[in-house]
Amino acid sequence: MKPDGSSLIGFGSSAPGGAEFLAFDPARGISLEPTFCSATGRDLERAVQLAAAAAPLWAKLSGAQRNKFLRTIADNLEKKSADLVARAQQETALPEARLKGEIARTAGQLRLYGETAERGDWLDARIETAQPERQPLPKPDHRSLLRPLGPVVVFGSSNFPFAYSVAGGDTASAFAAGCPVIVKAHSAHPGTSELVGRLILHAVRDCGLPEGTFSLLFDAGLTVGQALVQHPLVKAVGFTGSLRGGRALTDLAAARPEPIPVYAEMGSINPVFILPGALAERSAALVDGLHASATVGVGQFCTNPGLIVLVRAPAAEDFLKNLGAKLAATPPAAMLTAAICANFRKGVAARARITGVRPLPAPSADDARLSTVAAPVWFETSAQDYSSNPNLTEEIFGPSSLVVWCKDSAEMLAVAHDLSGNLTATLHAGTAEVAAQGALLDILANKAGRVILNGFPTGLEVSSAIVHSGPYPATSDGGRSTSVGTRALTRWVRLVCYQNFTEELLPPELQNANPQGLRRLVNGAWTNGAI
Amino acid sequence: MKPDGSSLIGFGSSAPGGAEFLAFDPARGISLEPTFCSATGRDLERAVQLAAAAAPLWAKLSGAQRNKFLRTIADNLEKKSADLVARAQQETALPEARLKGEIARTAGQLRLYGETAERGDWLDARIETAQPERQPLPKPDHRSLLRPLGPVVVFGSSNFPFAYSVAGGDTASAFAAGCPVIVKAHSAHPGTSELVGRLILHAVRDCGLPEGTFSLLFDAGLTVGQALVQHPLVKAVGFTGSLRGGRALTDLAAARPEPIPVYAEMGSINPVFILPGALAERSAALVDGLHASATVGVGQFCTNPGLIVLVRAPAAEDFLKNLGAKLAATPPAAMLTAAICANFRKGVAARARITGVRPLPAPSADDARLSTVAAPVWFETSAQDYSSNPNLTEEIFGPSSLVVWCKDSAEMLAVAHDLSGNLTATLHAGTAEVAAQGALLDILANKAGRVILNGFPTGLEVSSAIVHSGPYPATSDGGRSTSVGTRALTRWVRLVCYQNFTEELLPPELQNANPQGLRRLVNGAWTNGAI
Repeated sequence: MKPDGSSLIGFGSSAPGGAEFLAFDPARGISLEPTFCSATGRDLERAVQLAAAAAPLWAKLSGAQRNKFLRTIADNLEKKSADLVARAQQETALPEARLKGEIARTAGQLRLYGETAERGDWLDARIETAQPERQPLPKPDHRSLLRPLGPVVVFGSSNFPFAYSVAGGDTASAFAAGCPVIVKAHSAHPGTSELVGRLILHAVRDCGLPEGTFSLLFDAGLTVGQALVQHPLVKAVGFTGSLRGGRALTDLAAARPEPIPVYAEMGSINPVFILPGALAERSAALVDGLHASATVGVGQFCTNPGLIVLVRAPAAEDFLKNLGAKLAATPPAAMLTAAICANFRKGVAARARITGVRPLPAPSADDARLSTVAAPVWFETSAQDYSSNPNLTEEIFGPSSLVVWCKDSAEMLAVAHDLSGNLTATLHAGTAEVAAQGALLDILANKAGRVILNGFPTGLEVSSAIVHSGPYPATSDGGRSTSVGTRALTRWVRLVCYQNFTEELLPPELQNANPQGLRRLVNGAWTNGAI
Repeated sequence: MKPDGSSLIGFGSSAPGGAEFLAFDPARGISLEPTFCSATGRDLERAVQLAAAAAPLWAKLSGAQRNKFLRTIADNLEKKSADLVARAQQETALPEARLKGEIARTAGQLRLYGETAERGDWLDARIETAQPERQPLPKPDHRSLLRPLGPVVVFGSSNFPFAYSVAGGDTASAFAAGCPVIVKAHSAHPGTSELVGRLILHAVRDCGLPEGTFSLLFDAGLTVGQALVQHPLVKAVGFTGSLRGGRALTDLAAARPEPIPVYAEMGSINPVFILPGALAERSAALVDGLHASATVGVGQFCTNPGLIVLVRAPAAEDFLKNLGAKLAATPPAAMLTAAICANFRKGVAARARITGVRPLPAPSADDARLSTVAAPVWFETSAQDYSSNPNLTEEIFGPSSLVVWCKDSAEMLAVAHDLSGNLTATLHAGTAEVAAQGALLDILANKAGRVILNGFPTGLEVSSAIVHSGPYPATSDGGRSTSVGTRALTRWVRLVCYQNFTEELLPPELQNANPQGLRRLVNGAWTNGAI
């Protein structure tokens, strides 16, 4: 299974003519075959028209049909895991075990969302039956549920070639919700993207679904993505990436004649507050845990802990000394792309120049043979300097974190209070002090989509209860929805109410008979039964 | 109970200095006492700061506390119904019976949302308990639910002085969701607004809630509303009004450094498709029903049927002749404001000039004594002229509708297909033909938030199953939420997940004990029990 470099437009391929580009092996510093060709305006138009034509058919698919499709994609990914991992390793420099695990997670996510679609509870089906005798006016019969929006555009991310890319969370949840999907592949791993795209298309054919269910577009630059977000037939967008990129797309979508939602997961510094009691009880474990969380994947996680908040004390200084030693001994590693590494280097160089900011001891020198290789670079500063330098609250994507020293717990509370939106916020507390942290935890719950007690932010469970989201700038929608977990399906739908419909004309989910045994709110009571 | 003309800033009043304006009696054409004073920048800042200070306390209120507060407001409205109706009649020219009914609906809505808040099911509480032994990685404990966003700004509407104004749907749902509210009063009924605002403040005091729970700001112009939407501490906005106004606020909110949601309910032409079989079975009832729906409240309903689609046939021509006679006999009546009436007159004058558009027989002349009085003005045109004139798809707010004549059912389907977003879409079909209307109803379900079979769009049930929403331009969020019904609470919240929290530190709704008996999704199964 090898990529051939063309966009996948429905069941066809892109026309030649778009700008060409190559994939790049960041570990070896070499370009990879084949040549990829950016989608042309005609390719894009055809992909969107096919998706729009497929949308009404997709809106009629049963949950069981959508589940079968998602399971087929998951099966296909697992069957071709070796080919996918081989190409992804070349394109991302991520370790084999991580990539295998990511495919397993991606397949599991597809199956979980498929099961959710088939179960149908997420549709929020509600029924109020008629009361023709009611005074002063009869009460009509009202039945409502969530219905798919139509064609969804998904932007693949750089840092998760599987779980947040072509068959990743946004694609899986949009399919599960009943929407056709057009993916704009991330140019950091086009070959992996094409291979996954072909596996999705196999599933489309195997399940007898319409052309236009899925298309995959390449682009060397930004124009394809921008044109997709502005296309009148596109109804929603999913994005995982930088604040700048996500905000640009959100602004484009908001300025359309018909604005559409952009669900962008963007920057996050994922603060970690460590209290004295935690250090007294488990300093060594905290060193190991924080080091692992901050360096895994060369720090290229959206949940990477980028801000560590400590109260100045000898035990905290010892903790940081040990952590610093461990960081200094961490071997340099290739980042995902040369551009990401260049941004990382620029970010840490700028941070080093800020008054009051000091670097922690670093490895003797970066491995400068390659433009992609980075080692951890940490900084420390005082809470006062932190609060007076807005630049210090910005995310540096990669293995860099900032330690903020507080005089006391009041200053720590002030640092928490001044945080902007984050995906996660973490508190480490000792056994005796944890019960008194209600005020700090309340502040953190106002600042993040997930608040973690005595844990680490990296490592994300895909489940019914997870939230991967947060107030702006963590996400463009201020944390009202999540990109991970079964609640993600509700991003791609809107409400429709049917008044006085006959049984036959109602969607099956709202019929008296309740053929699927859906959980529904009937005259104010939840029930799985018929009426 | 009389208004005194000052904005209500927490428990205080506005400072003098803002632009002054008077309320206006549109039926008598005279100004009303007292003088109202626009809120100053300082008033606004104080209202927002108070709301922001109250927000954390509000986020901690139990559902039972919020319910008690909403019930108290409802009781206060009912107790003062006579005073409220008297002032509202002067300010709106709406009939007494309608205003009494609207107060009853508003009180019922407050109680329904309060009960919803206390019951708590809407919080979508979910729990996945830890599996420390899981391989390859332990599973952490995750518990999540919806949490209030913080200060919400609500814009009162012109056409519902109670149900969509100071204590109307957006205010009730935001309070129920746990958010402080700042209302920008509509200048069409400032006295009514102030009276209702004072009743809310009585409830704030009686329930021992913090200052900043509620403020009410007047403005002669647009600056107060614009400044509220742009204030960094405001977290969401509810609006009911024109497309132009709603879009302007949505654009302002999207351009903020931190974008916030604007839930704007805007224009809708509420198409009504009438099939031959319906006319054969009940032409006279359709004349009466459509006439009532189109003229009630001088056509000033967001669900006013503004587009009537018929297939040309003798029975349809008879139907329209009878309807036209009834419209021509409809007495002129005062609209809500002189500005609304001027816009109506401008709109119908412009429509009359469009090629291919003919007026239906009208009353001999408008009652031109007053700048506020209007009579029904209807037009007819062919489907072909309709589809070639984008202006014909625009809403004319007031008692004007457009009849579109189709050659056949295929042309009717094409008219449906070309519709933009609406709050409602209606189909009248005869007994024998209704079963075959699946394709048309599917199209209508793509175009509207509520699809009505053999009914009329005006008259809105406030319930758990209702949807008052629709694709853009009916609403700014494309129909993903509703402004009426218990689902409205979810507009004002975001998701928060708690990882590895101890029982005591969790919000009560997520504790093992489940003290409130909430319906929760626990390890994949819905239950009201404890863990």
